[in-house]
Amino acid sequence: MTNWVENAWYVASWDAGIDTVPVAHTICNIPMVFYRTLDRSVVAMRDACPHRMLPLSKGIREGDSIRCSYHGLKIGPDGVAQEMPLKNERVNTRICAETFVTHERYRFVWVWIGDKEKADPALIPDLWPCEAEGWTFDGGRYHVACDYRLMIDNLMDLTHETYVHSGSIGQEEILEAPIECLVEDDTVYIRRWMPGVEAPPFWAAALKQRGTVDRWQICQFNLPASVMIDVGVAPLGSGATIDKHDQGVRGIVIDFMTPETEETHHYFWGMARNFETHDAGFTARFKQQQGQVFAEDKDVLEAQQKAINANPGMRLNAYSIDQGGVRARQAINRAIKAQSAVEGQAV
Amino acid sequence: MTNWVENAWYVASWDAGIDTVPVAHTICNIPMVFYRTLDRSVVAMRDACPHRMLPLSKGIREGDSIRCSYHGLKIGPDGVAQEMPLKNERVNTRICAETFVTHERYRFVWVWIGDKEKADPALIPDLWPCEAEGWTFDGGRYHVACDYRLMIDNLMDLTHETYVHSGSIGQEEILEAPIECLVEDDTVYIRRWMPGVEAPPFWAAALKQRGTVDRWQICQFNLPASVMIDVGVAPLGSGATIDKHDQGVRGIVIDFMTPETEETHHYFWGMARNFETHDAGFTARFKQQQGQVFAEDKDVLEAQQKAINANPGMRLNAYSIDQGGVRARQAINRAIKAQSAVEGQAV
Amino acid sequence: MTNWVENAWYVASWDAGIDTVPVAHTICNIPMVFYRTLDRSVVAMRDACPHRMLPLSKGIREGDSIRCSYHGLKIGPDGVAQEMPLKNERVNTRICAETFVTHERYRFVWVWIGDKEKADPALIPDLWPCEAEGWTFDGGRYHVACDYRLMIDNLMDLTHETYVHSGSIGQEEILEAPIECLVEDDTVYIRRWMPGVEAPPFWAAALKQRGTVDRWQICQFNLPASVMIDVGVAPLGSGATIDKHDQGVRGIVIDFMTPETEETHHYFWGMARNFETHDAGFTARFKQQQGQVFAEDKDVLEAQQKAINANPGMRLNAYSIDQGGVRARQAINRAIKAQSAVEGQAV
Repeated sequence: MTNWVENAWYVASWDAGIDTVPVAHTICNIPMVFYRTLDRSVVAMRDACPHRMLPLSKGIREGDSIRCSYHGLKIGPDGVAQEMPLKNERVNTRICAETFVTHERYRFVWVWIGDKEKADPALIPDLWPCEAEGWTFDGGRYHVACDYRLMIDNLMDLTHETYVHSGSIGQEEILEAPIECLVEDDTVYIRRWMPGVEAPPFWAAALKQRGTVDRWQICQFNLPASVMIDVGVAPLGSGATIDKHDQGVRGIVIDFMTPETEETHHYFWGMARNFETHDAGFTARFKQQQGQVFAEDKDVLEAQQKAINANPGMRLNAYSIDQGGVRARQAINRAIKAQSAVEGQAV
Repeated sequence: MTNWVENAWYVASWDAGIDTVPVAHTICNIPMVFYRTLDRSVVAMRDACPHRMLPLSKGIREGDSIRCSYHGLKIGPDGVAQEMPLKNERVNTRICAETFVTHERYRFVWVWIGDKEKADPALIPDLWPCEAEGWTFDGGRYHVACDYRLMIDNLMDLTHETYVHSGSIGQEEILEAPIECLVEDDTVYIRRWMPGVEAPPFWAAALKQRGTVDRWQICQFNLPASVMIDVGVAPLGSGATIDKHDQGVRGIVIDFMTPETEETHHYFWGMARNFETHDAGFTARFKQQQGQVFAEDKDVLEAQQKAINANPGMRLNAYSIDQGGVRARQAINRAIKAQSAVEGQAV
Repeated sequence: MTNWVENAWYVASWDAGIDTVPVAHTICNIPMVFYRTLDRSVVAMRDACPHRMLPLSKGIREGDSIRCSYHGLKIGPDGVAQEMPLKNERVNTRICAETFVTHERYRFVWVWIGDKEKADPALIPDLWPCEAEGWTFDGGRYHVACDYRLMIDNLMDLTHETYVHSGSIGQEEILEAPIECLVEDDTVYIRRWMPGVEAPPFWAAALKQRGTVDRWQICQFNLPASVMIDVGVAPLGSGATIDKHDQGVRGIVIDFMTPETEETHHYFWGMARNFETHDAGFTARFKQQQGQVFAEDKDVLEAQQKAINANPGMRLNAYSIDQGGVRARQAINRAIKAQSAVEGQAV
């Protein structure tokens, strides 16, 4: 049994990461090849020719199809053979490449892991800030050599910022603000409301005024593996609350974790914001800074994974600050268990 | 159980690859050391001193013997100790290095894997073009990180030339010519007769005339793991047939695969030819070109092996073009099965 | 079951190798972090924060404590938490870092592997030449990728010097002198007395006179994993014997092997001597030479370990020269067996 939820959408790539040339990514232990057809839709297939298993990502594109570069079997975007190695031979359409359902939305290419018939685009999470009027969105991608759940733990507990990001976004005040944990079905929230604090430099610049503000951090975990963090400040007395706060400047940090194997994952990160939305230079500089901050997390998490492997008799312990991660893992475990129960019935 | 046939000769090296200085090669999972004695015969021993297991390939040659460079145990070419670490001590001849039977023929050093008593040089395959009058022979060696049977599949199905070697020897016509598969005991033939075709540039140059020719490709698999490919052209009307064709120019591509482990092998390749036999420059240039072509196969086969490992639920499929490889694998499986049956009886 | 003795002191480091900045070493399969407190005593803890397992060796020192660089849990030198990630939170002292008993003596930092209550500094072996008046001591450290017992075999049989160290300390005479093996409880001696030999250059220089000397080599194995080698020469007729020999010049080669894993170890080597004791240049040059000699052993032993792994059907054989190593391994096996018997009773 794997450590991730199936019958779910996972981010396979940023929109710009997949084009006409085939690219290979392993998602949830499945080697896949991705490419776009002429109408820009994204094909995902198992990255092994159904004939002799050479990776199709080494193949040559022909129209919307891909031709294996070993013996020339031509496979359509539906995974069905269109031409045999011997061109005059009748096409054997029983031997097909396994295909996967994809969907493009919010600048991400999503791939469905699990039972194809259940793949419903309506199940893609609501990332409204990534396409709302008055907002802008960008980000990057890292390969991280750790269990994707360690990244969820990390993002659901921002106390680590003080130590891991002491040179950048760390701030002692975060440690002092009380946190509130809410669970609604499989969604987990960690909420921090910091009323009447001095605006930190980044937010003062975003707000274009110094002085006292109300500040918030709301981490939201969703199945199968995402964390969105609503952050921002509003001028004191502007009426902002933990539940409603569009009076000041606001950003949503976007984090999607896609398992590659049990101990590695693809990390898609970014930020949607409702300020300086037309300043491309700001967007570029912010993405660079965010990338540096998340590279610090990558370092820590990869060291953590190595220590987990080197100390097989130990286990992770949880304090109050860890309740967000604990609740998120409980939701993941419930979903995995429910799934195996269904599969058990099916047999 | 391994995936190769035992009680068989395998190529260990080209003649020039073994000299007085010990060299190490692992053959069929057995680490071996090879060197020549003063009479030029080749010694093969397990590459571990029978005393404390330091590789003998790190040892020092003394006459026809080898002295371990750890404690100085001196081992004769028969694997028997000749001098103890303490020189005045009585030699313990019960502790010996395991030796292997070798034989040198057709410019190759052969090593017998299996029961020593069955090692009969008469069982070395007939490579007549490698030593016949009016022929010349040369070639090279590659280490390939794949199951040796993938190389057999490759060589028994030349349709891959169109895609893998599109920049060099690939030719669309090969895909159009019908193939014929013959099986005689454990020998498998794939025969292609292309009557009345335009001589391709390489063969026109060899024949020293342009124009229409009869062309052939005959792949011949033999146990335990070799493929010889009879290729050439004869002027139209010269009486050449698929069974007899010495009217024009002819070459025999020589391919011997020696398992190193279940997923790696030593690949010995070359070409014997009956034209330009005294042109050393031609020989050198052709060997270089052939090496470039086979390096393309190495790339593809190593990617194929990785894909096989990454997709444990999949298996190789076979079309009509694969019948040569399929029959060859059947012969290998029969031989392995027969062997285990005999071993079963022996117990 | 591991291949080393527990409830024993192992050398973790030279005294100079551990300072205020945390350093990581794996000892007997346990990842450990080491650092000195203000009073210079050495703390050893499992190198994984009891909270989320990030290596504590990546932490920040604060006073005598260490603060994890992930969430800031502050751990005292006794392994007990002193400050939570949220500073105002009540400290959870049940979740502790595992600590290990250390002791500093003879310029080494020793760590106790096993039951803490049994850790008695009196059990540290008597290395009198490392601190006696009129003697001086220095040495180095290597990481060696082999079972620590192969190093013991190596040191208990100096016949290897002729081959492994032919360019430096190897000498044919060593092969000719008879050896005597004595076993007293778990201590094993290999003694070589070479009366009336020409003083080799090194010893002639140490003795400051040429001519005939009595020479000795006495290898002494002690549990769990050390070999001390008493070497030197005395002028002929000065009354030196194999049992008592302080008439000339004398050195004790010190070798402590600390298992890292079953197939790797930390090798601590050095030399105590009773001549030129105030010549720092001699000490430095000798350490450099000794390091070069032991690097030759490292090469051989790592090749030996690889050959052991590559030849799973073979085993090490023992001649008369190997009796020291054989007896040492018997003592190790007896100790391991005795230990499991006690553990069996405890259950």
